[in-house]
Amino acid sequence: MDYLHWFDLMGIAVFAISGTLAAWRKQMDGFGVLVLASVTAIGGGTLRDVILDVPVVWINDNSYFIAIFSAALLTILLLRKRLTIPNNTLQFFDAIGLAFFVIMGTQKALDLGTSNLVAVMMGTMSAVAGGMIRDVLCRDIPMVFRGELYAVTCIVGGVVYILALHAGASTLLAMVLGMTSLFSLRLAAIKWQ
Amino acid sequence: MDYLHWFDLMGIAVFAISGTLAAWRKQMDGFGVLVLASVTAIGGGTLRDVILDVPVVWINDNSYFIAIFSAALLTILLLRKRLTIPNNTLQFFDAIGLAFFVIMGTQKALDLGTSNLVAVMMGTMSAVAGGMIRDVLCRDIPMVFRGELYAVTCIVGGVVYILALHAGASTLLAMVLGMTSLFSLRLAAIKWQ
Amino acid sequence: MDYLHWFDLMGIAVFAISGTLAAWRKQMDGFGVLVLASVTAIGGGTLRDVILDVPVVWINDNSYFIAIFSAALLTILLLRKRLTIPNNTLQFFDAIGLAFFVIMGTQKALDLGTSNLVAVMMGTMSAVAGGMIRDVLCRDIPMVFRGELYAVTCIVGGVVYILALHAGASTLLAMVLGMTSLFSLRLAAIKWQ
Repeated sequence: MDYLHWFDLMGIAVFAISGTLAAWRKQMDGFGVLVLASVTAIGGGTLRDVILDVPVVWINDNSYFIAIFSAALLTILLLRKRLTIPNNTLQFFDAIGLAFFVIMGTQKALDLGTSNLVAVMMGTMSAVAGGMIRDVLCRDIPMVFRGELYAVTCIVGGVVYILALHAGASTLLAMVLGMTSLFSLRLAAIKWQ
Repeated sequence: MDYLHWFDLMGIAVFAISGTLAAWRKQMDGFGVLVLASVTAIGGGTLRDVILDVPVVWINDNSYFIAIFSAALLTILLLRKRLTIPNNTLQFFDAIGLAFFVIMGTQKALDLGTSNLVAVMMGTMSAVAGGMIRDVLCRDIPMVFRGELYAVTCIVGGVVYILALHAGASTLLAMVLGMTSLFSLRLAAIKWQ
Repeated sequence: MDYLHWFDLMGIAVFAISGTLAAWRKQMDGFGVLVLASVTAIGGGTLRDVILDVPVVWINDNSYFIAIFSAALLTILLLRKRLTIPNNTLQFFDAIGLAFFVIMGTQKALDLGTSNLVAVMMGTMSAVAGGMIRDVLCRDIPMVFRGELYAVTCIVGGVVYILALHAGASTLLAMVLGMTSLFSLRLAAIKWQ
């Protein structure tokens, strides 16, 4: 399922852009940009894999860093030209990345035999912990603690995925249902706010 | 030794209450409460298990999260009714939880063949690292760096446990001695301050 | 190669001094000093080993903590007598420690079969992540994000090491080349600034 990897890299790139923007706002140097872009993009997945005691996903796959570094470089070039990526474009792709990270993280935990409760937590952690580390390094209180709907959306998506599996859906159907509901909820939340 | 698990869960619940109170003070949302309660309660044990490279204690045991979520929910309900848990009640149970975490963490490291020095550090880390992560997420300097007696009490408890083992005490006797001395020292420290 | 261990301990001690100075500036207590000294000295290597899923380097070797605690104690004694370690002396030994950490971290990752890109990142992380955790615990924005040359020097050293290996140099020669170039660059950066 090669297209899954492309969704993954797209989520990684969008998260890297958000890390780059945070580093830019804090007037960090080039190294700060690289660290914040990387930590935002792969921090959650790394924490998940370390806790689940499986090989960290990027350790044998350079494509993650190519996605991160390209996204960071492009963002810096745009910022230097005083261009900005429109916020709703960013949020749209962020919602896709979020849907992907939560469901894949939940599935990975289930595959390793965790309970449903722990699996949903692992899925949510995959998606939000990177941003939390970004905010800690920027000396901000994690944004995710201030905008309830972001994290709740992740939890709902994970729960839908697991309910679909329990109702007898195939993994693929459950994934589509989980991701679609998470993605729609997230778009709805953006519209409302 | 099933009653050990109940002590463990009591410590977990008290630490979850302290995380909930911190989130409340910082006016975080419901997700912030859950994350801070969880991180305070199981952050130290998770870090210990990841460093010792053994399965994380809560990965196959939902009772930890049931204890955390119940404690957080109860605390929020009390806070909303403008009721508070008396501070000395909290400190009393915190001292029991602390005694338990330090000694069990020290024993776990010793079982894996670490030196006495590393075992005491692991025991202390089990007990204090969760609160340190809580404080970092709240953008505070860790409280444990400002009130010397808290951490020193942990170290003393771990040392008593190991000295008792070296003096030929059974594991059970050494545990009782270590926990009792840690608990008494902690109560004495609370009285004095 | 026993002398390698002595270089390692020297780097550990210098990093522990920098953690102690940070704790002193923030008026932390004795426990804060021990935690900051330890985290600065072994935080980067611990993170590297946890991510690479190999036993953490200090778990069966007390010499790390003896080096850390001696360095912290000595620093505190000097500070209490209003003596200071001259800044350029510190920077000189820091440059040696840095050169050592980066190259040994890069080599450790390569030994485990990672790509060159991941290996250089692991080497750099070994050297700078401890200081980043120190700064987060002190509630500062990581220093390494504000002084570009520090981290870039690490990356250059790692790249030189890998290029030398690819050019057919023996491990020992590549190590000498990598460490020397990193060390010289770092001294040059100190002179310039």
